[in-house]
Amino acid sequence: MRETALHLDVLAQAESVFALADGHVGWRGNLDEGEPHGLPGSYLNGVYESRPLPYAEAGYGYPEAGETVINVINAKPIRLLVDDQPFDVRYGAVRSHERVLDLRTGLLDRHVEWESAAGRGVRLRSRRLVSLTHRSVAAICYEVEALDQAVRVVLQSELIANEALPPAVGDPRMSAVLGASLCSEEHGCVGARAALVHRTAESGLRVSCAMDHHVEGPSSTQVSSESFPDLARVTITASLEPRERLRLVKYVAYGWSAQRSEPAVRDQVAAALTSAVQVGWDGLVAEQRVYLDDFWAAADIEVDGDAEIQQAVRFALFHVLQAGARAEGRAIAAKGLTGPGYDGHAFWDTETYVLPVLIYTAPDAVAHALRWRHSTLPLARDRARQLGLQGAAFPWRTVAGAECSSYWPAGTAAFHVGADVADAVVRYVEATGDERFEEDFGLELLAETARLWRSLGYHDGEGRFRIDGVTGPDEYSAVADNNVFTNLMAKRNLFSAADVAARHPQVARRLGIGEGETAAWRAAAAAMFVPYDEARKVHPQAEGFTSHQVWDFAGTAAEQYPLLLHFPYFDLYRKQVVKQADLVLAMHLCGDEFTREDKAANFAYYEALTVRDSSLSACTQAVIAAEVGHLDLAYDYLAEAALMDLGDLEHNTRDGLHVASLAGTWIALVAGLAGMRQRGGGLSFSPRLPEGITRLAFRVVFRGRRLRVEVSPETTSYRLAEGAEDAGLEIFHFGEATTVVGTDTVVCATPPNPVRIPPPSQPAGREPLRRHARKSAGERDPAMRGPTKQGATP
Amino acid sequence: MRETALHLDVLAQAESVFALADGHVGWRGNLDEGEPHGLPGSYLNGVYESRPLPYAEAGYGYPEAGETVINVINAKPIRLLVDDQPFDVRYGAVRSHERVLDLRTGLLDRHVEWESAAGRGVRLRSRRLVSLTHRSVAAICYEVEALDQAVRVVLQSELIANEALPPAVGDPRMSAVLGASLCSEEHGCVGARAALVHRTAESGLRVSCAMDHHVEGPSSTQVSSESFPDLARVTITASLEPRERLRLVKYVAYGWSAQRSEPAVRDQVAAALTSAVQVGWDGLVAEQRVYLDDFWAAADIEVDGDAEIQQAVRFALFHVLQAGARAEGRAIAAKGLTGPGYDGHAFWDTETYVLPVLIYTAPDAVAHALRWRHSTLPLARDRARQLGLQGAAFPWRTVAGAECSSYWPAGTAAFHVGADVADAVVRYVEATGDERFEEDFGLELLAETARLWRSLGYHDGEGRFRIDGVTGPDEYSAVADNNVFTNLMAKRNLFSAADVAARHPQVARRLGIGEGETAAWRAAAAAMFVPYDEARKVHPQAEGFTSHQVWDFAGTAAEQYPLLLHFPYFDLYRKQVVKQADLVLAMHLCGDEFTREDKAANFAYYEALTVRDSSLSACTQAVIAAEVGHLDLAYDYLAEAALMDLGDLEHNTRDGLHVASLAGTWIALVAGLAGMRQRGGGLSFSPRLPEGITRLAFRVVFRGRRLRVEVSPETTSYRLAEGAEDAGLEIFHFGEATTVVGTDTVVCATPPNPVRIPPPSQPAGREPLRRHARKSAGERDPAMRGPTKQGATP
Repeated sequence: MRETALHLDVLAQAESVFALADGHVGWRGNLDEGEPHGLPGSYLNGVYESRPLPYAEAGYGYPEAGETVINVINAKPIRLLVDDQPFDVRYGAVRSHERVLDLRTGLLDRHVEWESAAGRGVRLRSRRLVSLTHRSVAAICYEVEALDQAVRVVLQSELIANEALPPAVGDPRMSAVLGASLCSEEHGCVGARAALVHRTAESGLRVSCAMDHHVEGPSSTQVSSESFPDLARVTITASLEPRERLRLVKYVAYGWSAQRSEPAVRDQVAAALTSAVQVGWDGLVAEQRVYLDDFWAAADIEVDGDAEIQQAVRFALFHVLQAGARAEGRAIAAKGLTGPGYDGHAFWDTETYVLPVLIYTAPDAVAHALRWRHSTLPLARDRARQLGLQGAAFPWRTVAGAECSSYWPAGTAAFHVGADVADAVVRYVEATGDERFEEDFGLELLAETARLWRSLGYHDGEGRFRIDGVTGPDEYSAVADNNVFTNLMAKRNLFSAADVAARHPQVARRLGIGEGETAAWRAAAAAMFVPYDEARKVHPQAEGFTSHQVWDFAGTAAEQYPLLLHFPYFDLYRKQVVKQADLVLAMHLCGDEFTREDKAANFAYYEALTVRDSSLSACTQAVIAAEVGHLDLAYDYLAEAALMDLGDLEHNTRDGLHVASLAGTWIALVAGLAGMRQRGGGLSFSPRLPEGITRLAFRVVFRGRRLRVEVSPETTSYRLAEGAEDAGLEIFHFGEATTVVGTDTVVCATPPNPVRIPPPSQPAGREPLRRHARKSAGERDPAMRGPTKQGATP
Repeated sequence: MRETALHLDVLAQAESVFALADGHVGWRGNLDEGEPHGLPGSYLNGVYESRPLPYAEAGYGYPEAGETVINVINAKPIRLLVDDQPFDVRYGAVRSHERVLDLRTGLLDRHVEWESAAGRGVRLRSRRLVSLTHRSVAAICYEVEALDQAVRVVLQSELIANEALPPAVGDPRMSAVLGASLCSEEHGCVGARAALVHRTAESGLRVSCAMDHHVEGPSSTQVSSESFPDLARVTITASLEPRERLRLVKYVAYGWSAQRSEPAVRDQVAAALTSAVQVGWDGLVAEQRVYLDDFWAAADIEVDGDAEIQQAVRFALFHVLQAGARAEGRAIAAKGLTGPGYDGHAFWDTETYVLPVLIYTAPDAVAHALRWRHSTLPLARDRARQLGLQGAAFPWRTVAGAECSSYWPAGTAAFHVGADVADAVVRYVEATGDERFEEDFGLELLAETARLWRSLGYHDGEGRFRIDGVTGPDEYSAVADNNVFTNLMAKRNLFSAADVAARHPQVARRLGIGEGETAAWRAAAAAMFVPYDEARKVHPQAEGFTSHQVWDFAGTAAEQYPLLLHFPYFDLYRKQVVKQADLVLAMHLCGDEFTREDKAANFAYYEALTVRDSSLSACTQAVIAAEVGHLDLAYDYLAEAALMDLGDLEHNTRDGLHVASLAGTWIALVAGLAGMRQRGGGLSFSPRLPEGITRLAFRVVFRGRRLRVEVSPETTSYRLAEGAEDAGLEIFHFGEATTVVGTDTVVCATPPNPVRIPPPSQPAGREPLRRHARKSAGERDPAMRGPTKQGATP
């Protein structure tokens, strides 16, 4: 990712795009000198502040406290004084600017040539990393060089706590807590080393940050340090002759704990810092490269014929990795660690969109993410009890596991999150064969969610198992009866729990799962009610949905999207209008429950209703569009998912990247164009390429093997990356079983296209950009919200 | 109403019961000396303070500001010092205590004999009124008499602004604004006269209060006065020999305005005060009696055989009158002017429960109440526009007309309020023949509400007119499709609007109502969808309702009622459990839409689901119980409605009386036992008495005539109170038309009872108290929450 000019009006968006993270520590791509900034941000996964959730009319069971991610100690700033002028791109003259996020090295490079108002020129190069191998460590290599004239330079390398943030746009009450939420506990400095220890005021989390420096410069170079409660500063001064350089490596380590004492946290950070200094800058860079080489070997995708998508999917995979790589014991949030959007909360889309990508590219991260869910079971059980239910009710949105949604119709009522977790458990275990995980964590997650479903639904007079009054994925409907997605996912959850309990009788006994209980789970699953509209020959998203008035799309202006900002919920909920794939998502995740005819009819029906006001929709629409034969449309949706953040399609990339939509880029390619599904313990493929994409190659990790799939318009080849000695891997190509063995490449022909059906239509004005037509026309459709000014180029 | 002992633990409840009001000014029954108090309260109808409504997650169209009634300037206190000891019932010794609220005179009398800790005895008598003939005026006649020993007495008669209130129970955030919300603008005193002028801080309403005094005492008596920003005080000192008295008449006048200047408001209050002083105490008392004699002549009900109900219904009528008598231009709030409950808001129950009583007892008050609704049309139109609808969307809860409900599923979505207003308009005009009102206000109210329905619903593919996603009266369901009550009321609303527009073509033209529009109203009404459950042979409360799981009543403990305090909304909404009459209310208000068999089957079905966690339910259940032949059950529900406040059945009478439930006592007797309905412009009756009630006599005002109805077990007699000269009044007795003329008494026999059907059952533990059995057993059922300790006796 390359930026060749600095546009101050989209600075915050660039900060999100250029964010570095390892799942534990996250640094937004703020400029080294701290200002100007869009939104300064340094995050530690799991560090939040509590705030009371206000209600004008409270109700039983409403969550009382919210959790909001906070901007922790900012360790990025290295301020530069050139003679008597502060280096600031808003003053003087920027002669050249370039930033490059290198997806292979994991480094953010910056080159600037700048001339002060007094005419003094410097060249600045900084390289920054958040280490994937040292979980708590980040580092910056900063060089300043005098150009034609000698200059005196002062570098101030800082740790800043409680820095002022720009006021929140929109409702100012929502981020009241985000100001000075850190209370100083300790600060200190010795030589080029300094540290701060703080504690959050309400949530009581202890946070420490320390820095050390390696300085190379002329003999005039001097180093001093000082510390205060909210500031630690190491100052380096030097006089540089023309072409002379001052080089600074800044090592940073973070630590936090809800339980450990102040000395313990302080020392843990000092140890991590010392370790990083010993490895040194070059060592950290080398380790980063090794880590990423390994990742790309398992995960890379090649897309020929569309360079923009090629870049976007690699960008997406890189950020998905950054969000989850080292989250160990903590959630993967909707924005990863790239910004404060959604209060830093994790939602169901982690399990439904992000983990399915990591399962095939970085499966260890999935085990960690699901272990985090498991660690929150006590809170989820408490929540279920509070709601009068059995088992565990996972939160709609949370940092630490407590329900933080104050609007229950779109939060608590969206019980499908439990089935989404269960689905990820089953997929992960099937894909990895991690039996140990299944015994230690998986079965309990499955059982506790199955218990929830069993108590949430009931067998009606006709014996059908109904789940009334819940909310599915689509946020433009709420609190409806028998949402098809929810019921089908609950069905799988119930069956899986019973199956896994039967496989691990000892664990089942420990968890108090008796045969009566598993029989009840199976009975509920077998009798699960799935409504169907016989008149319209489609599945209603939920019972009664298709009887509702269709939204007046013709009377809705382009600027009235997203609808939720211009129309009341009551009106959205009572009409046929779909924010995001819901029934269509059911057809992806529970495809075996639908016939091919169902899929085509349902897809056409819901296409006409879906406005994609959510970033979670396009990728799923791509998957089903491809499955039912609309390859061009699948390509359009693929592109929309891929450019969600690079094109800022939702206008909120400034608050952080949409990690699930980034994952969706991979999903649209692999589950969409390549038609990959994991069913019955194996992988199946139905690859077809749309016009414009000439080749698609990708790798997936499955049961410890790396399968390489290469799709061309006529054929698909399958090969194992390492020639395994065993019986090989059975896969399905368009339903035909075949086995990939050793180093052999299995080449399968793409069957002829099925009968073409006319492409479905979308609500007026909400059609996706036509990807192929646009490219061949060589210009952008004006309806497309263009790429950002930072000019991301392949 | 007589109280013979003062119980400090239920002081607040007694203050509500003994409240005096005229619809404009309201005084809670606080003790003259100000303390001890349960909840001090002085209210002016329409005086509120604004406060921001907080949302942790805001949404489009959520109301941003709430309105909360405030305790205005307290003009009740007359403090008494006996020698050097303050008169306070908590100290010294109360030798006797009695308070009497006389429903004929409208006076609250108090007699106390008290002995100070120092052994000085005084006898105190106060009489208090809030004038029904002088809208802004209240007065107190206060006498203190020395008993056996001479005493020095000091009286301090005060006006107090911003008095401290006891902290709110429950959520302290909900009444944050209720503290010092009045800003002093002016204060002054001359002789025995003093005044304060304040302005509310946020809502900007100017409030003034002034007092004057007439003093009679021994020659030693001296009077002085002083004033401060929040306090005005007139001090009277005297030395009383044994048996000597000091008598003080305190005249109080209030005024407020959102627009008028400070001098204008001050002078208006001074004028009202001067007028009251000129009329004098005896004059005010005499006028009050004349006003009430006239009211009782039109409204009194006699119930033989149950003295408790006899008293309760008179108490109820008195308070309904007090709530609405002089509300002129302002709302009749749910608590009247008796307390701060529900923030002083008016709801739909004003039109549906209170106005139907006033229509037949004090019709002028109804015209005023509906003119208030009309005056809020601009706000209701704005709200409809904001919601994307046509016409007017009246608020769920309000003081001044703006929507103040922060929880839209139970507020904004309860659109039936529009049809409830329309229903009251139609009934009022039919009952009074007030054509002028219909032209000036009625048609516009009908048309604007009809427009709302036409835009809220739609004709589906089969032509049926559906109203999806709205909330009916029952607050344990929300946001459902085709609520039967809502659809039937909307149907009547649409037809009525078209009919009235046709009758007043000129007005219709002025309001822009064309023939195409009325045709559309009629078409929607004619095609109104009313769901019916063919399998269960009942009407579902809303589409799909009868498919839901029945609430686990057996597993719900007595102390878990009201359910809303112990279970989450999501669970209540998704199950078959009914807080209050909804379908059953439809059967009362839209009785012609149901067959007799429908009514019996529906009533039995919903009886088994209805828990009566709302005070609005019992009276309606009484009406339908009587109609379908369960007279004993009707009697039980009548008693529950009648004793709602006197028995404090909902545990919140302290916050004010339940005016709609008080009105419901009358409804249970007149619409219930006497079976009165107003249909097709006439009155019909089907009177039957349950065992235990031997005679029921009542008066109704209809088309200017006063009809007296006297029901005995065997016969009912009808007679006009004044022998009119005209053709008489046609009424229906059990469906048979008959005409009441001149001074003739028409005696009609009660037909034999229809076939008895077994009485329905209620949820376990939620059966109403058996009224007749209990009385004959001579003891109270322990499940009955007993009468208040203040010992209200007939």
